[in-house]
Amino acid sequence: MNAEAQLQELWDVESIKRMRASVSRLLDTKRWEEFGDRFTADAVLEAPEAGLRCVSRTEIVKLVSAGMDGVRSVHHLHAPEITITGPDSATGIWAMSDSLERASAQGPTVMTGYGHYVERYERHDGDWRVQLLRLERLRIDN
Amino acid sequence: MNAEAQLQELWDVESIKRMRASVSRLLDTKRWEEFGDRFTADAVLEAPEAGLRCVSRTEIVKLVSAGMDGVRSVHHLHAPEITITGPDSATGIWAMSDSLERASAQGPTVMTGYGHYVERYERHDGDWRVQLLRLERLRIDN
Amino acid sequence: MNAEAQLQELWDVESIKRMRASVSRLLDTKRWEEFGDRFTADAVLEAPEAGLRCVSRTEIVKLVSAGMDGVRSVHHLHAPEITITGPDSATGIWAMSDSLERASAQGPTVMTGYGHYVERYERHDGDWRVQLLRLERLRIDN
Repeated sequence: MNAEAQLQELWDVESIKRMRASVSRLLDTKRWEEFGDRFTADAVLEAPEAGLRCVSRTEIVKLVSAGMDGVRSVHHLHAPEITITGPDSATGIWAMSDSLERASAQGPTVMTGYGHYVERYERHDGDWRVQLLRLERLRIDN
Repeated sequence: MNAEAQLQELWDVESIKRMRASVSRLLDTKRWEEFGDRFTADAVLEAPEAGLRCVSRTEIVKLVSAGMDGVRSVHHLHAPEITITGPDSATGIWAMSDSLERASAQGPTVMTGYGHYVERYERHDGDWRVQLLRLERLRIDN
Repeated sequence: MNAEAQLQELWDVESIKRMRASVSRLLDTKRWEEFGDRFTADAVLEAPEAGLRCVSRTEIVKLVSAGMDGVRSVHHLHAPEITITGPDSATGIWAMSDSLERASAQGPTVMTGYGHYVERYERHDGDWRVQLLRLERLRIDN
């Protein structure tokens, strides 16, 4: 690979990491409009272990914002493996953990989970967006 | 942006990530002199949720080292969003978690917290340093 | 450092981060053959706090796969400090946490730990591999 191509790839990898980091931040701070902007219009969200599959940016925002209603959530991303697969496409794997605190009559309960996000990204109009986000669980602790 | 500017920006982003990673490592291993070296002389530390604001490298080292006395601390950094804002200035957001173990008569107690560090960096004499470190909390579990 | 050398260093740093991320993923998904491929033939694994030292790729795979048998493990990597030390050699420090769930007659028990991986990497036949992995513990919670 020549120097120009290497530089472009490193630039794209860093852009994708930064964009994806913002998705989790916007989720945990419940900024749903900006959160939605990070997905392609035809994006797919999958969590096979939970029997969940959701298609389109609109449906993803609706489902995730409803699911996080009343929840104080923390979603952490670890150690990305980003691969550029074309001029405007890429894949990524991130280790993840989440901690969801729900109010209940007996006081707050916390669910902690672990797994990997297996993802695809596409560049549209100069901006990288999430086209596929699949959560593969390792474990959920209650 | 031309290739030269892209390369310089990627280089600076990696330098800042590495420097900031060392701040948390030096904190958790209580190496206070090296910890202090990572801050500018006029650095500001803020934790609004805790009503805390501290100005100057000297005060930051004094406050943090006193606060961690007798504590076995873990401070983890996740998924940085670094933005270069000038030839020698940058901003950053990191997701974070901390886990602080304190001894007590009833045995050790652990406090676990989550949030984001919202930061500014400056380059002085060739080295990037932290000029602002503000901790915005999402949640504290006891 | 000239532009060509900077680009090569950034490329190598990203390659090492991605390779190392895969080591933890292959460990937690118990893909032992691919896990082993990430180590040099003469690699060393050390965990001084546990009195553990293990030499050679073969021994590392044997020890780690036996240790994780029946364990649902999570190993997370945080905030790398990678330093290129030669054309085919590098060092790295990563903050880490692990959470190991073991079945028992009284139900599953979880051990959570924190520390730093202090590591060396070497490039063989174009691929970066782990030559030394030493775990320095900050704390283990039961």
